[in-house]
Amino acid sequence: MEETLMKVVKFGGSSLANAAQVSKVVNIIKADDQRRFVVVSAPGKRFSGDIKVTDLLIQYANAVINKQDATPITDQIIARYQEIAEAFAIPAGDFEEIRSTILGLPQHDYQDNDYLMATFKAHGERLNAVLFAKVLTAQGLKAKYLDPREAGLIVTDSPNDAEVIPESYDRISEWSASSLIRVIPGFFGYNLQGQICTFSRGGSDITGAIIARGVHADRYENFTDVNAIYAANPAVVHNPIAIHHMTFREMRELSYAGFSVFHDEALIPAIQGDVEVVVKNTNHPSERGTSITSTKRVNPAYPVSGIASSPNFCGIYIRKYMLDKKGYSQKILNILAEHGLSYEHMPSGIDDLTVIMRQDQLTDDLEDTLIRELVIALRPDEIHITHDYSLLMVVGEGMVNRTGLMSKATDALARQNVKLVMVNQGASEISMMFGIQEDHANIAVQALYDAFFPDL
Amino acid sequence: MEETLMKVVKFGGSSLANAAQVSKVVNIIKADDQRRFVVVSAPGKRFSGDIKVTDLLIQYANAVINKQDATPITDQIIARYQEIAEAFAIPAGDFEEIRSTILGLPQHDYQDNDYLMATFKAHGERLNAVLFAKVLTAQGLKAKYLDPREAGLIVTDSPNDAEVIPESYDRISEWSASSLIRVIPGFFGYNLQGQICTFSRGGSDITGAIIARGVHADRYENFTDVNAIYAANPAVVHNPIAIHHMTFREMRELSYAGFSVFHDEALIPAIQGDVEVVVKNTNHPSERGTSITSTKRVNPAYPVSGIASSPNFCGIYIRKYMLDKKGYSQKILNILAEHGLSYEHMPSGIDDLTVIMRQDQLTDDLEDTLIRELVIALRPDEIHITHDYSLLMVVGEGMVNRTGLMSKATDALARQNVKLVMVNQGASEISMMFGIQEDHANIAVQALYDAFFPDL
Repeated sequence: MEETLMKVVKFGGSSLANAAQVSKVVNIIKADDQRRFVVVSAPGKRFSGDIKVTDLLIQYANAVINKQDATPITDQIIARYQEIAEAFAIPAGDFEEIRSTILGLPQHDYQDNDYLMATFKAHGERLNAVLFAKVLTAQGLKAKYLDPREAGLIVTDSPNDAEVIPESYDRISEWSASSLIRVIPGFFGYNLQGQICTFSRGGSDITGAIIARGVHADRYENFTDVNAIYAANPAVVHNPIAIHHMTFREMRELSYAGFSVFHDEALIPAIQGDVEVVVKNTNHPSERGTSITSTKRVNPAYPVSGIASSPNFCGIYIRKYMLDKKGYSQKILNILAEHGLSYEHMPSGIDDLTVIMRQDQLTDDLEDTLIRELVIALRPDEIHITHDYSLLMVVGEGMVNRTGLMSKATDALARQNVKLVMVNQGASEISMMFGIQEDHANIAVQALYDAFFPDL
Repeated sequence: MEETLMKVVKFGGSSLANAAQVSKVVNIIKADDQRRFVVVSAPGKRFSGDIKVTDLLIQYANAVINKQDATPITDQIIARYQEIAEAFAIPAGDFEEIRSTILGLPQHDYQDNDYLMATFKAHGERLNAVLFAKVLTAQGLKAKYLDPREAGLIVTDSPNDAEVIPESYDRISEWSASSLIRVIPGFFGYNLQGQICTFSRGGSDITGAIIARGVHADRYENFTDVNAIYAANPAVVHNPIAIHHMTFREMRELSYAGFSVFHDEALIPAIQGDVEVVVKNTNHPSERGTSITSTKRVNPAYPVSGIASSPNFCGIYIRKYMLDKKGYSQKILNILAEHGLSYEHMPSGIDDLTVIMRQDQLTDDLEDTLIRELVIALRPDEIHITHDYSLLMVVGEGMVNRTGLMSKATDALARQNVKLVMVNQGASEISMMFGIQEDHANIAVQALYDAFFPDL
């Protein structure tokens, strides 16, 4: 007999996109009474080309801000919830609460449009949680909506990019003995003034992790639409192997480089609370999924867990004889800071260095300004910006012999004539990072996959 | 018939260590009347265990500062010059100028002991130039001593670590039409107040390069005691191949990593004036030597010019989940700056970075302080210092396919079980840099040499 565990489960937007999906979720919750806390996203896309409820709410907010007629939008939003409510025979009187909340959103007092936007967006999750609690009750389960305010989820005063305040965890822990299933909306909390502030987009994963840490859950199940996390992007590599266990650090590095299965900010509460995260598929709940813990795999078949690439980086190359690195770096960082720019890496040679940044931060004008200011401040012998890098990552806790793996990786890349724009590798023994041209990225991922995941 | 070139020649300390060596230098100058400017070092070691005149002068200065009897030291210094003077039959009256200058050094007014030290040290070169001009004259050549003050070599006001002031070049250029051979002491110039200030140790190379740029020389011949610059340190690799041509950039990168044949600060005037530098051997002047220019080799037999390693680096490894690289780097640089520390490289992973520094800057106490301050400022999840790195460099302008070379290098290192502590590679296409454990350095250099310089 399995021991009793406390589980927090989170369902993504595609898992709750329509009544058919919601009934799968109901079955998942019914199947395991250890699933005590249910965190829900807003209804997502039902089909390719569909609009997510969150995006409809953003349209709604903009219409209100611009004093336009929002009726066509609110009709769509209401219809999304109504379809689910009707399928589960939620009484019309109960549904009226959802309809009137949607229509009433413009009537609240908002400090400014940022707060208005945050509140509108948050209602995708909020109303889905209200509705889903009713659905579970209608299905005979003892379930109740729990608002983040009541739960004690307090966040920083940043309306659309908030972070949890650590005091929240003690408050949330008081709910751990709850005998009911608690349905909690993802994506938002309240600041100390009681205003709604959302996390960054996709932040329902974060709410789930915060609740899991707060109630001291044994496991945080994150239900989405993939059977597992794969060793490479299935859109690039044909039929990549599933990784059934990885460490938090591996997940974090892969998230950075484009593995978007699990929001990387959501890892932090899980790490802090040492809560096992399991990624599972709502559509195939019996699949094993991917377990993410602090424990390394023992004798893994492959030393590497995943190969990822992330596009849209650029590099500012600066060369000057007798470069004084410290003085140089400080001047560069100051100039970047003045423009609110952040950088990712700064590999350096003897008389040169390259500042690797996300290029979506830059416009043509800003690039010109930046180059001009750097020339004035540094008087370099050479300076230029190269666009369209991808960062290519090879991640794995099993990299005890990194020299051999580096050799294997560079050999595989050389065979495919992938040009290395940069290699940047500190003392971390968990990953290798290469800068390559973006149009080489898919070839490179395939080459590394073939090298590190040979048929056994 | 060869066209007439203007050449500046510089002779190092071992080339002028005694009369036998000096007569080789005389023959070199006699052999080519294009050698118009002769820059000399102080007499160096005549045999292993001998004391260089510069070091005797430092002892002399310290004796004077500490009010000790300096006679045993001045006797040795005088004897070094006297041996040369007598061998070339310099009249005793002429030599008396050198003797009295040495004995009179303590009688000058010095602003402080730093200036005293600079002046004492500079006289190793100064008196050698005075003497050598007399030697050349005695040998029937039209030669004259040229003092850096008269030449116009003005330097910054930093008594023992000066830099040339760019205005010097115009003044020096006025000497280019001189019909006499001008013998100029290396290693020092005068500040605007007329005080002697020296370059950093080994700085006669710098004087030669400044004169060469100033007089618009076609070639700067740097005579020392090796037949050429080799592709690897002959003390590590048996009988390495000689590199007969390299670029300024290659030389600069190899200098950084420990190739000490030519002072790396001396490259700058040569680069600025685009003066060819030729490293030649006083003892075998017919050997081809190594030519250093701004022009790349065409179709080189080997894509790589040299393999070098430099010891005594350490790395501060810092890991924190969701590292904000920009904020982090600024805090780190500020803390380093407060302690007057400089860093060499800062390779970074996703959630970690390593600060590579020269470890001779640090004491145990300073390390403790640094770690404590970094912990307070950054609250890292992990921080530690690793000592005794070597930086291993593979340098070559021919690195068009760097991926293939990286693969070859890491494969060679992996076969010898050399652990890679870091790899740091920006957009420069001229070198690859690896951090390795110091005790792997010789094995690594040999492995890379074998990989990149196979018998053809």
